[in-house]
Amino acid sequence: MTPQLFVKMNLDAWQAAINNTNRVLGLLSDEQLMNEIAPGRNRGIYLLGHLTTVHDLMLPLLRLEDGPLYPALKHPFLEVADRTVSDIPTAAELRAQWNEVNNRLKEHFEKISAEDWFARHNSVSEEDFAKEPHRNRLNVLISRTNHLEYHRGQIALLIQK
Amino acid sequence: MTPQLFVKMNLDAWQAAINNTNRVLGLLSDEQLMNEIAPGRNRGIYLLGHLTTVHDLMLPLLRLEDGPLYPALKHPFLEVADRTVSDIPTAAELRAQWNEVNNRLKEHFEKISAEDWFARHNSVSEEDFAKEPHRNRLNVLISRTNHLEYHRGQIALLIQK
Repeated sequence: MTPQLFVKMNLDAWQAAINNTNRVLGLLSDEQLMNEIAPGRNRGIYLLGHLTTVHDLMLPLLRLEDGPLYPALKHPFLEVADRTVSDIPTAAELRAQWNEVNNRLKEHFEKISAEDWFARHNSVSEEDFAKEPHRNRLNVLISRTNHLEYHRGQIALLIQK
Repeated sequence: MTPQLFVKMNLDAWQAAINNTNRVLGLLSDEQLMNEIAPGRNRGIYLLGHLTTVHDLMLPLLRLEDGPLYPALKHPFLEVADRTVSDIPTAAELRAQWNEVNNRLKEHFEKISAEDWFARHNSVSEEDFAKEPHRNRLNVLISRTNHLEYHRGQIALLIQK
């Protein structure tokens, strides 16, 4: 067993979750994304914006870029609940941003060596990282994969049977 | 970076998903588990049975035991859709089985060495495993963690706001 194998296993799980989410989004019209996933719950468009900003924020968190591509998404889709902000991007705009963010991450991921996945992420100090070496970039990837799966299960409820 | 660190990262993610699911289940009454997660969709009890049998089947899949603890759950909660079988366990029974299965897995997981996590699982032949070493036990754990998160996001919709 090698670090390369371990990284591949977790990168494959991430990419599978992205692909499966894209498949779900492909089955939904922009109009369907405006629906609530269940009565009184988040709308599909909020979850799409939420996932987009959370993935976008991985760029600085993983120390891949200085900041996110779309910083304006953070407030309406991460800091406040659905329907708090009325002026949000359209579903078509969010779909494009979602793809742009994930493509940018993928470009970076293809260049990170296995060893560098085990380097610290940006929310942990060098001092703490010395004591807690699991707080590395790969752990962020694992955590975000699970986060994506959590919300994918919800967005899938919008598919018409 | 060590094999122990790899395994810890994925085992921690698994245990966090289990703990978070138990927290959600603790907020739901047996009556609430009989509700649909969204109109026309699976009931909470079906998802609890589904997760229980999928985790139970990890025991033979990971070559930890000869078979599952509750083989009778496989048909109503994995092979057929919700409401196909009317004679299913009660929510109280399923909660107990859910905990029993996860506790049994945990007992085994505490005894598996880091190296043994990278051994093949039971659905891949030794010949194929030689060519595809990522088809190991740890990969099953990663996949099942994501599966749990997918359905946890759905079960959480049953919590009354």
